[in-house]
Amino acid sequence: MDPLFDPKSVAVVGVSTSPENLGKNIIRNLLAFGYSGKIYPVGPRGGEVEGMAILPSVTELPEKVDVAVLLTPARLVPDLVAQCGEHGVRWAVIQAGGFRESGPEGMALEERLIAAAARYGMRFVGPNCLGVMDTTTGFSIPFITLPAVYRKGRVAIMAQSGGMGLSLAERLNTSGVGFGKFVSLGNKLNLDEVDYLSYLMADPKTDVIYFYLEDFKRGREFFELAARSPKPVVVHKSNTSPISRTIAQSHTAALAADDRLVDQLCREAGVVRVRSVSEAITAIKAFSMPALRGRRLAVLSRSGGHAVVAADTCGEFGFQFPPLDESVLGEIRRHGRAGVIRLGNPLDLGDIYDLRVYFGVVKGVLRQSDIDGVVHIHVSHMPVEKDATRTLLRELERLAAAFQKPIAVVVEVPFHDRTVLEENATYPFFLDVREAVEALAVQNGYFSKAAEKSGTPSTDTAAPSWFHAASAWIHARCAEGRQPLVHESLELLGILGIPAAPWKLAKSLTEAHQAARALGYPVVMKAVGQALSHKSDRGGVILGIENATAMEAAWERLQGLGPDLEGALVQKMMRGSREMIVGAFRDPVFGPVVLTGMGGVLVEVLEDVALRLAPVDRGRAMEMIRGLRGSSILGAYRGFQAADTDTVAEALVKVSLLVRHFPVIRELDINPILLGDRGEEAVALDARVILETASHDPL
Amino acid sequence: MDPLFDPKSVAVVGVSTSPENLGKNIIRNLLAFGYSGKIYPVGPRGGEVEGMAILPSVTELPEKVDVAVLLTPARLVPDLVAQCGEHGVRWAVIQAGGFRESGPEGMALEERLIAAAARYGMRFVGPNCLGVMDTTTGFSIPFITLPAVYRKGRVAIMAQSGGMGLSLAERLNTSGVGFGKFVSLGNKLNLDEVDYLSYLMADPKTDVIYFYLEDFKRGREFFELAARSPKPVVVHKSNTSPISRTIAQSHTAALAADDRLVDQLCREAGVVRVRSVSEAITAIKAFSMPALRGRRLAVLSRSGGHAVVAADTCGEFGFQFPPLDESVLGEIRRHGRAGVIRLGNPLDLGDIYDLRVYFGVVKGVLRQSDIDGVVHIHVSHMPVEKDATRTLLRELERLAAAFQKPIAVVVEVPFHDRTVLEENATYPFFLDVREAVEALAVQNGYFSKAAEKSGTPSTDTAAPSWFHAASAWIHARCAEGRQPLVHESLELLGILGIPAAPWKLAKSLTEAHQAARALGYPVVMKAVGQALSHKSDRGGVILGIENATAMEAAWERLQGLGPDLEGALVQKMMRGSREMIVGAFRDPVFGPVVLTGMGGVLVEVLEDVALRLAPVDRGRAMEMIRGLRGSSILGAYRGFQAADTDTVAEALVKVSLLVRHFPVIRELDINPILLGDRGEEAVALDARVILETASHDPL
Repeated sequence: MDPLFDPKSVAVVGVSTSPENLGKNIIRNLLAFGYSGKIYPVGPRGGEVEGMAILPSVTELPEKVDVAVLLTPARLVPDLVAQCGEHGVRWAVIQAGGFRESGPEGMALEERLIAAAARYGMRFVGPNCLGVMDTTTGFSIPFITLPAVYRKGRVAIMAQSGGMGLSLAERLNTSGVGFGKFVSLGNKLNLDEVDYLSYLMADPKTDVIYFYLEDFKRGREFFELAARSPKPVVVHKSNTSPISRTIAQSHTAALAADDRLVDQLCREAGVVRVRSVSEAITAIKAFSMPALRGRRLAVLSRSGGHAVVAADTCGEFGFQFPPLDESVLGEIRRHGRAGVIRLGNPLDLGDIYDLRVYFGVVKGVLRQSDIDGVVHIHVSHMPVEKDATRTLLRELERLAAAFQKPIAVVVEVPFHDRTVLEENATYPFFLDVREAVEALAVQNGYFSKAAEKSGTPSTDTAAPSWFHAASAWIHARCAEGRQPLVHESLELLGILGIPAAPWKLAKSLTEAHQAARALGYPVVMKAVGQALSHKSDRGGVILGIENATAMEAAWERLQGLGPDLEGALVQKMMRGSREMIVGAFRDPVFGPVVLTGMGGVLVEVLEDVALRLAPVDRGRAMEMIRGLRGSSILGAYRGFQAADTDTVAEALVKVSLLVRHFPVIRELDINPILLGDRGEEAVALDARVILETASHDPL
Repeated sequence: MDPLFDPKSVAVVGVSTSPENLGKNIIRNLLAFGYSGKIYPVGPRGGEVEGMAILPSVTELPEKVDVAVLLTPARLVPDLVAQCGEHGVRWAVIQAGGFRESGPEGMALEERLIAAAARYGMRFVGPNCLGVMDTTTGFSIPFITLPAVYRKGRVAIMAQSGGMGLSLAERLNTSGVGFGKFVSLGNKLNLDEVDYLSYLMADPKTDVIYFYLEDFKRGREFFELAARSPKPVVVHKSNTSPISRTIAQSHTAALAADDRLVDQLCREAGVVRVRSVSEAITAIKAFSMPALRGRRLAVLSRSGGHAVVAADTCGEFGFQFPPLDESVLGEIRRHGRAGVIRLGNPLDLGDIYDLRVYFGVVKGVLRQSDIDGVVHIHVSHMPVEKDATRTLLRELERLAAAFQKPIAVVVEVPFHDRTVLEENATYPFFLDVREAVEALAVQNGYFSKAAEKSGTPSTDTAAPSWFHAASAWIHARCAEGRQPLVHESLELLGILGIPAAPWKLAKSLTEAHQAARALGYPVVMKAVGQALSHKSDRGGVILGIENATAMEAAWERLQGLGPDLEGALVQKMMRGSREMIVGAFRDPVFGPVVLTGMGGVLVEVLEDVALRLAPVDRGRAMEMIRGLRGSSILGAYRGFQAADTDTVAEALVKVSLLVRHFPVIRELDINPILLGDRGEEAVALDARVILETASHDPL
């Protein structure tokens, strides 16, 4: 993808001398950013722009240009792309709007565009986008006049909204960070998030990768790839509420993804998810410092109040404060005027105003092998210190680099000093203690995660031993064109080898009596019938049947449920205080997904669920279970013995393989799995399978 | 307290001509801020500063000054205060440090200082503080040179850290807000948070009150007062972690308060709690706009991406988006160039660049009676629009005032445009969509809370009917000089009329058999003895004793617990799936506190507890219960009937009165209270009382 950011020549199609023409801005931005390649303005009306002749057509181009930029009415784009392709152009940036976001006609245009590009093997950005920038090559082609020549940096901004991308660019430009590559992704018709991520992961000019995404075109691949990224990936996935969706659709068509799933996939792949421009800036600043390799910090502050707030925030994020070495404290003692400041970590620099003393202290602290990073709070409200802050930041940048430990510098300085930093700093700084500590927490989370990153989901596709039996079960149900009944779903568990509470199907009261005797009282009875299964609220489930008399009464009650009744499931009643759920479904964006969570009260109160792309292996299944908030009660607790989570993990693995192998399974729920108080084998009490092809359960 | 902010004359004690003298800065700040009263520099070495003669002593003051400012060595302060008092000075600002923060000698100085001030009825700020500012009167006496003359505003900054206060002042100054009064509270030896709050609540020049506090001197009174405040109170209570405490103590002595309790007291009193300067700024900006009276918003944006992010964030905070009137949409249709933007709420202003059209749209939206507030996102990266943002903000300020609805204006503009706003704006603006929505959420939370504010805790001190019996019980225990045993605590519940599971005390196996027969099997048995009660982990509690044989075995087991055993409590075994806890304790800062929470699994997984200052009345007790996260399972749920929360509320009221009346009760826990599945009366299963005077429970 190098030619997109560093082309030797570019044709800008859609330029005219009209005062309202936006194409001219592209030419001006290229010149302002110092692009050194060849520029060919193209527009049917000819003329001249910035001293360059406007060619009447791409057919007149004197050479095979590396990139064509198209800013014309949408209806012209497919033919223009074909012309470009014919002339050997292989990369295009299609800024023109008026495609899928405009309705059916735009959709048709998109299809023609795809076909034209495919014919010539062309790849393109957009359509419906603001374009590309590369601060290091000067290839900067937005069609609006940019407010400034942005500072060079090593962050890549990939934004599915030009406005959001520019906001980030602008803010990074004044955060001591800058950026390198910028792409406004537009409709992602050809190049999508996976293409960009894959390129940037290997790009030697990029250290931090940021995405603003309103949808995923290849979500599964995106996270599989991100999990292998050697560089931090920061993602702002928006469009999380129904109301957002209505506007996101008008903006660029965006398919809704399960937001909890996105959260969990980010966490699993080590992707840092943010929810605002400010959070993104904090995360990017974090990764623009040397890596934080542990949780042990030193806090140095000139204001006691700020030190207290820093300690509060560090405490909240679980950071620790090792004592400072005697040599460091001695330095302070030698230079401090009053003896009133207690020496410790956090360290109140109090009445020391000599910057050189600061640097000595910082150096001493960084030298400590039991200190992983520093929060340095520089409070200066006195005009006399005007230049001190700039000098300080430069020197701290140098020290951080030399010791390869992050120094999060908080500057609490007057307005004008701040603007000087915003214009000139080459190292990130923070305007708020909390933001600085949050940045270190982001780093810490990322680097400790990176150490244990579990890589891509298991891709072991060897057919499991139960494959043929499960396949037969599914085909039988599909052939009948209906959803499985409750006992059929339990049968499937049997096929998979997932333990369930013993059960029998009874078609008559006599059979029910026999079943109960065989299983042993007390039993549970569940109505079997297309519309009746799982309908405990309609009396379809009767618990605690203790003897034959109660069984008779229960049978009688079930008969009242209506003509749909095909029989009853008689199941041994099991006891236990802890419940879990195991399930799987096909997400429209991410494909097969497996889930587990705590059952019972905890599901009512917290939505305590872990989701992963299927399939998962045993290790990942155990990781899901351990990650639940309620997992604390799965161990030995309140006189209960440790619960049999092995069986739950095994069930997760099997269910995940099942939905991965059989796309026809839309949803599968084992709810609940009962965990015995004395650590007995976990057993499924109920299961439900919904198939894609069959008609849906009417209720 | 008016003279502290608007004195007709001030003596500044501790001024000299030495280049290092800080007192001079005070004089300079007064002149720079345009203070129009009389200024008397005082210092033993005489001389002249800024054209004013330095008086050698306060005894030479030609008039009774309104305020004396003391910036001298600490050891001189008590005598200086006495001299001032003798000369009729009634208010002082003691900036001098070197008191309690310096150790025992400083403590002694504080005592002398208190005595001196008391002798003359003097009130004072500090000691150990940066001083006072009032931007409206120009009375600005910090002893450092200030970077700027701060903008006038209607926010009061009260900070128990001069550094934190100045950071806030600086940031407010560039947020379109400014401030009015500023006090660096220092050691709060005389004037404390309650004095300042009380004054500011009635101050006609103050609309928003901000406190940065590291401790509470009169915490209970503070929250009782804040609950009655007609103005928003924003509190940053820091010093929440053990490590913070070590430095806060070195800074100004600060007693640790239960942080969860502070959280709940803030929520209850309608105090907005913040945890950083940035959060404080957001909240203060929020209250510097007209009030948001509902949850119905319009979002207007020039960038589709920003609109999506705004909708996400609004969705997260529970805001709604009513459709916009046809007249508003018509305005857009008339002026928009392309038909591609879907019209709705959020509204994408898309390609409209004419500010007048914006204002028409905003006016139309504000006119809608079903719209409570607006988020206006102004994205402008084009230099050509440089002045547009300033004009826009001024006009939106006007419209917000005219319609008395908040317009949260987000400006995503280039650096230089932003700095122009920071220097000149007179209406708050936001640099991030999320911050703007958070501000509206702060407002919404505050105003909906204000509507239902429950005022101060019940102060009904009429002795309850059980008062004498409870008093007798307590005195008996205290006389014996030991902690109550388990059956004695249950006795106290009986006195209070809190239902408990039926129980009997048994001193022998025969008595235990009799008790069990009387109560009816199954029963529970609990060891009674100073070191044994509540020790289920040591086998002191035996559950589910079903018959006489089991009783014998259980009795045998208890005998093995050791010589401390005085007998056994035999209690009827009760069943139920839901548990709660009710308790009370004396907080070192806030005094008597009552608490309730969900028991069982929910206590293990969430710390789901509500705390309130005791006593509480029935209404507040119900509010506590309803506010629990787990309260959803107290209603009818999963076939259970609604739980008997009335009894729990009653218990809360009684327990809260008990700890309020009897300070000797250090702690009282009823854990658990069992709630029957069929809505049976709630019953306490266990209770524990710890008294202040008696020796502590050894374990």
